[in-house]
Amino acid sequence: MTTTANTNGISLDVAADLAAQLRVDSIRASTSAGSGHPTSSMSAADLLAVLVGRHLRYDWDNPRSPANDHLIFSKGHASPLLYSVFKAAGVVTEEELLNGYRRFGQRLEGHPTPVLPWVDVATGSLGQGLPDAVGVALAGKYLDRLPYRTWVLTGDSELAEGSIWEALDKASYYQLSNLVVLADINRLGQRGATEHGWDLHTYAARAAAFGARTIEVDGHDVSIIDQALSEAGEHAAGDQPTVIFAKTIKGRGFSEVENSPDWHGKPFPPDMADRAIAELGGIRRLVIQGLRPGPAEPGPALEHPSTLPQQGDRQQPSRDWPQYKVGDKVATRKAYGDALVTLGARDDKVVALDGEVSNSTYASEFATAFPERYFEMFIAEQQLVASATGLAVRGYKPYASTFAAFLTRAYDFIRMGAISNVDLRLVGSHAGVEIGPDGPSQMAMEDLAMIRAVQGSTVLYPSDGTSTAALVAAMADLPGISYLRTTRGSYPGLYEPGEEFRVGGSKVLRSTDHDQVTLIGAGVTLHECLKAAGQLAQDGVQARVIDLYSVKPVDTATLQAAAGATAGRIVVAEDHHPEGGLGAAVADALLEAGPQDLRLTRLAVREMPGSGTPEELLAWAGIDAAHIADAARELVRG
Amino acid sequence: MTTTANTNGISLDVAADLAAQLRVDSIRASTSAGSGHPTSSMSAADLLAVLVGRHLRYDWDNPRSPANDHLIFSKGHASPLLYSVFKAAGVVTEEELLNGYRRFGQRLEGHPTPVLPWVDVATGSLGQGLPDAVGVALAGKYLDRLPYRTWVLTGDSELAEGSIWEALDKASYYQLSNLVVLADINRLGQRGATEHGWDLHTYAARAAAFGARTIEVDGHDVSIIDQALSEAGEHAAGDQPTVIFAKTIKGRGFSEVENSPDWHGKPFPPDMADRAIAELGGIRRLVIQGLRPGPAEPGPALEHPSTLPQQGDRQQPSRDWPQYKVGDKVATRKAYGDALVTLGARDDKVVALDGEVSNSTYASEFATAFPERYFEMFIAEQQLVASATGLAVRGYKPYASTFAAFLTRAYDFIRMGAISNVDLRLVGSHAGVEIGPDGPSQMAMEDLAMIRAVQGSTVLYPSDGTSTAALVAAMADLPGISYLRTTRGSYPGLYEPGEEFRVGGSKVLRSTDHDQVTLIGAGVTLHECLKAAGQLAQDGVQARVIDLYSVKPVDTATLQAAAGATAGRIVVAEDHHPEGGLGAAVADALLEAGPQDLRLTRLAVREMPGSGTPEELLAWAGIDAAHIADAARELVRG
Repeated sequence: MTTTANTNGISLDVAADLAAQLRVDSIRASTSAGSGHPTSSMSAADLLAVLVGRHLRYDWDNPRSPANDHLIFSKGHASPLLYSVFKAAGVVTEEELLNGYRRFGQRLEGHPTPVLPWVDVATGSLGQGLPDAVGVALAGKYLDRLPYRTWVLTGDSELAEGSIWEALDKASYYQLSNLVVLADINRLGQRGATEHGWDLHTYAARAAAFGARTIEVDGHDVSIIDQALSEAGEHAAGDQPTVIFAKTIKGRGFSEVENSPDWHGKPFPPDMADRAIAELGGIRRLVIQGLRPGPAEPGPALEHPSTLPQQGDRQQPSRDWPQYKVGDKVATRKAYGDALVTLGARDDKVVALDGEVSNSTYASEFATAFPERYFEMFIAEQQLVASATGLAVRGYKPYASTFAAFLTRAYDFIRMGAISNVDLRLVGSHAGVEIGPDGPSQMAMEDLAMIRAVQGSTVLYPSDGTSTAALVAAMADLPGISYLRTTRGSYPGLYEPGEEFRVGGSKVLRSTDHDQVTLIGAGVTLHECLKAAGQLAQDGVQARVIDLYSVKPVDTATLQAAAGATAGRIVVAEDHHPEGGLGAAVADALLEAGPQDLRLTRLAVREMPGSGTPEELLAWAGIDAAHIADAARELVRG
Repeated sequence: MTTTANTNGISLDVAADLAAQLRVDSIRASTSAGSGHPTSSMSAADLLAVLVGRHLRYDWDNPRSPANDHLIFSKGHASPLLYSVFKAAGVVTEEELLNGYRRFGQRLEGHPTPVLPWVDVATGSLGQGLPDAVGVALAGKYLDRLPYRTWVLTGDSELAEGSIWEALDKASYYQLSNLVVLADINRLGQRGATEHGWDLHTYAARAAAFGARTIEVDGHDVSIIDQALSEAGEHAAGDQPTVIFAKTIKGRGFSEVENSPDWHGKPFPPDMADRAIAELGGIRRLVIQGLRPGPAEPGPALEHPSTLPQQGDRQQPSRDWPQYKVGDKVATRKAYGDALVTLGARDDKVVALDGEVSNSTYASEFATAFPERYFEMFIAEQQLVASATGLAVRGYKPYASTFAAFLTRAYDFIRMGAISNVDLRLVGSHAGVEIGPDGPSQMAMEDLAMIRAVQGSTVLYPSDGTSTAALVAAMADLPGISYLRTTRGSYPGLYEPGEEFRVGGSKVLRSTDHDQVTLIGAGVTLHECLKAAGQLAQDGVQARVIDLYSVKPVDTATLQAAAGATAGRIVVAEDHHPEGGLGAAVADALLEAGPQDLRLTRLAVREMPGSGTPEELLAWAGIDAAHIADAARELVRG
């Protein structure tokens, strides 16, 4: 049936037929589900038909083949189109498309997620698919060194998201010629016209200024689309990403809704669907045979721009874990950098990224040791997490670091990372008021709450070098979103080298058979708890001290035992707001464990801090040793 | 001493002298504090000297004058420069500069905050000052209609933040010719060279493509700077924002550190400071008399672009609160829109913004009623919150809405809004799994945790139309960050019109003298609690039901009374992850209230949802009436 040679995929005539099929199936799927976005799917159907029929190199029987191109649907609401593509590829049945879409317990969700093997990342929060794709393309060019291309379909509304421009900035900086963006400019958003309508020139000027090669096309002319995709695909050996801006019509192919602002996100009622399908030439059952990828043979290693500043006499990093002595002062952020280098020497899947603060987070140590596996994201935290997501899609183990306060910038990306089912390792330095003079904008005081609330997350908060190194190593094998909170200042080592730290565990650092109160801390407040326990002991009050380095999951058994042993008297001190952090983790665990007599005092940062020394601010916030000891005395008296 | 007429401000010679003074004072302040960013201050000293000496129209004795220009330091780490400007203006003493900077209890914080009367917004999280300034300029052009200009100093590193491009996109869309950005391109970030170094052309091409008028200057030539600022200032009657890209040298004026990558964020030791001050010509004590603003006479009202889609036959909106009958079904998101219109009719300081989903959040009702007070931010949630921040700086009462899930995109802006001490009203619709088929990307399940953790925040979560309307009204007068969570579906009215809802209160919807268990919900789960109570009553189990519409602050007294009355048996059900939400608020309050026998069962969304109907997903998550009743029965049995 095809008019062109097999190596070129389907003919353009068949592509046009396929486009009609994709439109019809998008309508059928959404009408059958009673919800969804048929018109947003119809605008991009020609783009997708030409792409999957003639350019995408993909082994549909082996979605995990490393040689496969990647297809990322940044406009996730056009899921009917994506699922119609899967049906056309023969991997989703008509039955599933018509009875599974948007249904409970089914895998064709309202917006694509990786419960489907052909979906790399979850989309649906707009402006995230392209940033994620940058991470995939980074892996392809510099780590996998394979000739696969990463194709992205974006809408036009999502081009208003700043994250799109962070992505294009990094795509051009890293010369990601293996990245091709198809922008479906259908002029209409959810509630009306977009800012720039069909002004393709404005979009193209922006993308060009951000370093992309741009092509403007009629998004409904399969021949012109084909030419653009050929150019873009051939361009993969160059040094620029390509963005194809396609002028399209929302609802294209069904005259009753074409270019109407009133049909966003609405399925057609059955009678309209029948008319639409008739106008589109009826139901088709094409199964397309697109191009298959070549062999997965890695090309030569390429240096990338951010390796350059670290060039020089590079020494072979040690494969031994860093050793910190009990009592010697080290910052946990420094131990993070040290441990990451060891981890990198032992596991070449480990990669690191940072948001232009690597000399503060100590990611710089990894950048120096393994420049080819370090990606500088500059001050673009959304892209920091998105790049990590894309690298994780390709099987790498990303550690992404910045000031913990600035991870708030990427919360939507972290949340979506969990839905994407990727394993991300996030590291936030400069926790809390302990940072001192820089003031509140730099003080993370919401990060524990933020990450604890993410589905399936792990939250770790070590207090010394030995525990930090152990937890950095443990993170390498953790599923989902894991987070390590590090501290600015240097504090004495608490554990002998080699001590083990189980995720979900804790350490009792001080206890007797007649403890009267339990003190719980992590990071700087653990050191304050230890000081407080010393002061209390002088007054004849015995305090148990717990290092709650695993904030989620939390060690309920140890907490329960301590509560039982100390008559329910517990003081938790944290350098964080009182909501959602360490104290909340303790309260949640003990209440869930069942009824007991609890007298829990939670010390936390309850007002807006200013500048000061760490000591002044810890005292001001009421989370230093003196306040902890006072709270303990009050509990014991009470 | 000045060489030009008073109406032009200080002469260029004096400006050059002032620039030297600003450098010297930046050095003195940071060296005396032992921390800070002198070199980042020195690069921008000439820009600031010319600006404040010859262009800024500002009554230093009356910082709240509505006629004043606004000066926003987007590169907040250059605080020594800003504070040196304040000293030069005569409003900060030398004593304060040298002994107050970065000290505990003082107002010259490490990064600027509005504890200083001349600071509009807190900066220090990069890429936020310019977005905030867009909000100020929106107010100036369309609401205040005053000729003040908004001047912004940005660094170059922060131009990597997507939020910068969201801001310029909106600045050009809204034709904010009253906005002038001075970009200090000193080539060096925290850890080395920026992505684009001194490539001013690339920056300028980007800004031009985003609709700005651009000027490239030598940032150390006061005459050229002056010319550029004149052009920019005169341009204020035009239709484009202006961005001046200034090529500068980090550490300019002190040869030992000029253009060095090794001196970011480091004060000079005293001996170096002495050499620097000598090289800069010594200590000066100029007090500058800049330009004063003209009278604050509003100009004519201007239509703005996003009013256009709502044009047509506009009816006078009612000043009466919407009335919802008990039992009649209404969605709380719809009640939000209804109430906002009434509020808008009663208070012309009320303004609304939305992220291109106003037909889902029902902000569209306000947009139709008051198009001149509605600002469409399209899909740019960071700018949504930043614009609200800028509008609040000018005394307006912004209500900013989008899907609650997408407010996560703006978490850093919300956090900084609290530090900026602005009153922001955020409204998130489509909470939790209740939204049904769209799937997890659209389901807010972290929003309560996220906003609760913000300093001084208020979190409201109504369950019917009457309570929604009352809380929307209450938000108008709330300080700080307040958040209203609305629900997609329609549920029966629970309260008679006129019922009062105190922030920090709750409602006991069902109780007897012999209640055995307390059920607590909000939003959809409150309706499920009521159903569960009905089922339980049929089994002879009496359940108290509490509408916990105020999640923060929470009504501890009512919770305690309920716990006491029902033997500590409490079931909390929430359409949110278990961390940091409704259940956490209840647990925190009851534990803080003191020891009592608690048996708290928390029902929440504990796994990753997919698509489905609301009913299916509520059951799957275990937060529907059946699960609530089961949990209650288990507590009563136990």
